[in-house]
Amino acid sequence: MKLHDTPIGPYPARVRIAIAEKNLLPLIQFVPVSLRKGEHKTPEFLAKNYSGTLPVLELEDGTFIAECTAITEYLDALDGLPTLTGKTPREKGLIHMMSKRAELEVLDAISVYFHHATPGLGPAVEIYQNPEWGFKQRDKALRGMHYFNGILETQPFVATDFFSMADITLIGALIFADLLSLPLPPECQALQAWYNRMQQRPSVKNRITMSHPPAAPLDTP
Amino acid sequence: MKLHDTPIGPYPARVRIAIAEKNLLPLIQFVPVSLRKGEHKTPEFLAKNYSGTLPVLELEDGTFIAECTAITEYLDALDGLPTLTGKTPREKGLIHMMSKRAELEVLDAISVYFHHATPGLGPAVEIYQNPEWGFKQRDKALRGMHYFNGILETQPFVATDFFSMADITLIGALIFADLLSLPLPPECQALQAWYNRMQQRPSVKNRITMSHPPAAPLDTP
Repeated sequence: MKLHDTPIGPYPARVRIAIAEKNLLPLIQFVPVSLRKGEHKTPEFLAKNYSGTLPVLELEDGTFIAECTAITEYLDALDGLPTLTGKTPREKGLIHMMSKRAELEVLDAISVYFHHATPGLGPAVEIYQNPEWGFKQRDKALRGMHYFNGILETQPFVATDFFSMADITLIGALIFADLLSLPLPPECQALQAWYNRMQQRPSVKNRITMSHPPAAPLDTP
Repeated sequence: MKLHDTPIGPYPARVRIAIAEKNLLPLIQFVPVSLRKGEHKTPEFLAKNYSGTLPVLELEDGTFIAECTAITEYLDALDGLPTLTGKTPREKGLIHMMSKRAELEVLDAISVYFHHATPGLGPAVEIYQNPEWGFKQRDKALRGMHYFNGILETQPFVATDFFSMADITLIGALIFADLLSLPLPPECQALQAWYNRMQQRPSVKNRITMSHPPAAPLDTP
């Protein structure tokens, strides 16, 4: 399979983390797409994903699967052992709800802030901006961080008692906040502690370099 | 189970259609929530669903599941026979992708148009509006209709060769367009033909009255 993505992006991070958690790296070939050059808005790329977003998974049969949740569903079902999207109806419902909530209330809100109230990907890509809407979404994201802080004060993971797609989505949101130097509110200590724990997971820590073999150690003379 | 919803709403329609398709009506008790009165924005309701949206499914154990996709995942997994969200990895991926795309490109765009560029639910509920953003989203929805028209020119259903959650999401979008008298572009004939077929499904046709037993026939004197 091919993953069309960019190593740094917060949405690609969601799928890279899922790939690592599921030990699927040997099956994946990475195809870089430059957001800064607007390669995700070219007609060629839009034919792969109408919405013009990264990442996109290309299956061996030529099928393109876009949208992080959809790609995660695909990858998690591959081995018949879903660990990221839930096994029971209740787990599936809670994980999908909390993942969507992390998108709506934090990740996608930060994305709108980035594209509308900051220079975003630059004038060639950001051809329409609505700064008022962008700042409203930044404020929504900060409220959302308080909401998730409350959740993480009482449970170890976002949706249930194990690591899931919902944690990955919220990690993506906080990676985006990091990239924009949007600090977590200092009173969100449970959220910060959870994020510190998540950053220790190899899937999160090694996500950017996962497409490359580790660099050979320098020869000492 | 209890479904907190309103019979007319396009998002509640998505879950009502799923309930009917899965023959789960006998398990559901409907709890009406008035959008016009802003009952979905009260602290009591926000404790059930932080995002303040309908519908919300309340399980017997007191768990609340919000977000249409999450509720549909829950309901579809209940009998171990998923028909709406896919069985194989590829089906799951495609259905989740196309359902999300129908949200992003049409349904949610129409919702933003409604809440920001029309009187929406009235001044007591719509305390902040951004009309420029609202009209942008209306135009995005119209472009999205052309995209799905192209899809439906070559296949009978939105995601794959059977009726799925992705069809339900696009039906919800066109229900919303109907409510707002936002006409389908006349050149979208495949989309219109598909919508006409979908409206013949009992799950779609009877969704508004499904919480009530059929009225007794009038006595003829």
